[in-house]
Amino acid sequence: MRQTSFADMHCSLARSLEVIGDWWSPLILRDIHLGLRRFGELVEDLGIPRALLAARLDALVGGAVIEKVEYQQRPSRHEYRLTEAGRDLVPVLLALTAWGDRWRSPDGAPIVAHHRCGATTPPAIVCAGCGEPIVAGDLDYSAGPGAATARGTQLIAGVLAGGGRR
Amino acid sequence: MRQTSFADMHCSLARSLEVIGDWWSPLILRDIHLGLRRFGELVEDLGIPRALLAARLDALVGGAVIEKVEYQQRPSRHEYRLTEAGRDLVPVLLALTAWGDRWRSPDGAPIVAHHRCGATTPPAIVCAGCGEPIVAGDLDYSAGPGAATARGTQLIAGVLAGGGRR
Repeated sequence: MRQTSFADMHCSLARSLEVIGDWWSPLILRDIHLGLRRFGELVEDLGIPRALLAARLDALVGGAVIEKVEYQQRPSRHEYRLTEAGRDLVPVLLALTAWGDRWRSPDGAPIVAHHRCGATTPPAIVCAGCGEPIVAGDLDYSAGPGAATARGTQLIAGVLAGGGRR
Repeated sequence: MRQTSFADMHCSLARSLEVIGDWWSPLILRDIHLGLRRFGELVEDLGIPRALLAARLDALVGGAVIEKVEYQQRPSRHEYRLTEAGRDLVPVLLALTAWGDRWRSPDGAPIVAHHRCGATTPPAIVCAGCGEPIVAGDLDYSAGPGAATARGTQLIAGVLAGGGRR
């Protein structure tokens, strides 16, 4: 389905999308996080074709965001668990879900997340420096240590060198 | 490329992915946010085939996350701008980028975001209630007002009713 690889793009967003940037992977990760860890459960919950699910699970294992664990021998049975990198994606998925709740769910949120403090408000994406919620207009950008003028940031490099032009 | 529509899934994550869940759309949104607003600029920066870019831009306009604006008449020229819903996605993309910086960028971040407070630390996804950074293990879930036992949450509904089993 995909024509090009994003892994060689000089862009961390592209590299993230290389791992989870298809339609199914974020939903698979969500389901595993929610406790649906077995192949058959994922098929049933998502209505995903089995061959497609197998391919996506292999890719997620290859991307080291999930691991396949044998939870029973004779007969051997496996389940999938999030790795540390995978668990680190959960807040991002939660933020994306909150966006869907806000902009695409006229009937209200299908699933409500409860933080251990008891709050059920959507997560906030804040500046780790000042703690203020991040809004698009408050951001500026510069080239980082891993920057390059290459596919994915062909023009961006120049925009950043010029101080941006938003 | 896509076989099924996610729009009818009872899941806000799926509905978000319906809008931006292909490999290119998040990168297109990022570029527009960074100031690359014209068709030719996006082609050059991303190395995306023109027909594919045109299709993705149409879909993003249809999803109301960008709008096409005529910035010059005679000859007519257009550029793309983020809508309010699109700007609301920027922090989410930033959080996804930070994940890529952490887990997929051994050479360091290609692009560094500066908040208006001066901080360049990655964004934090925090609980809007207590302000603590959200980690996967601190979350629990319940069915929300828009919940349904349907594709996308076929089994999840039962898991939630049972209080989860993570």
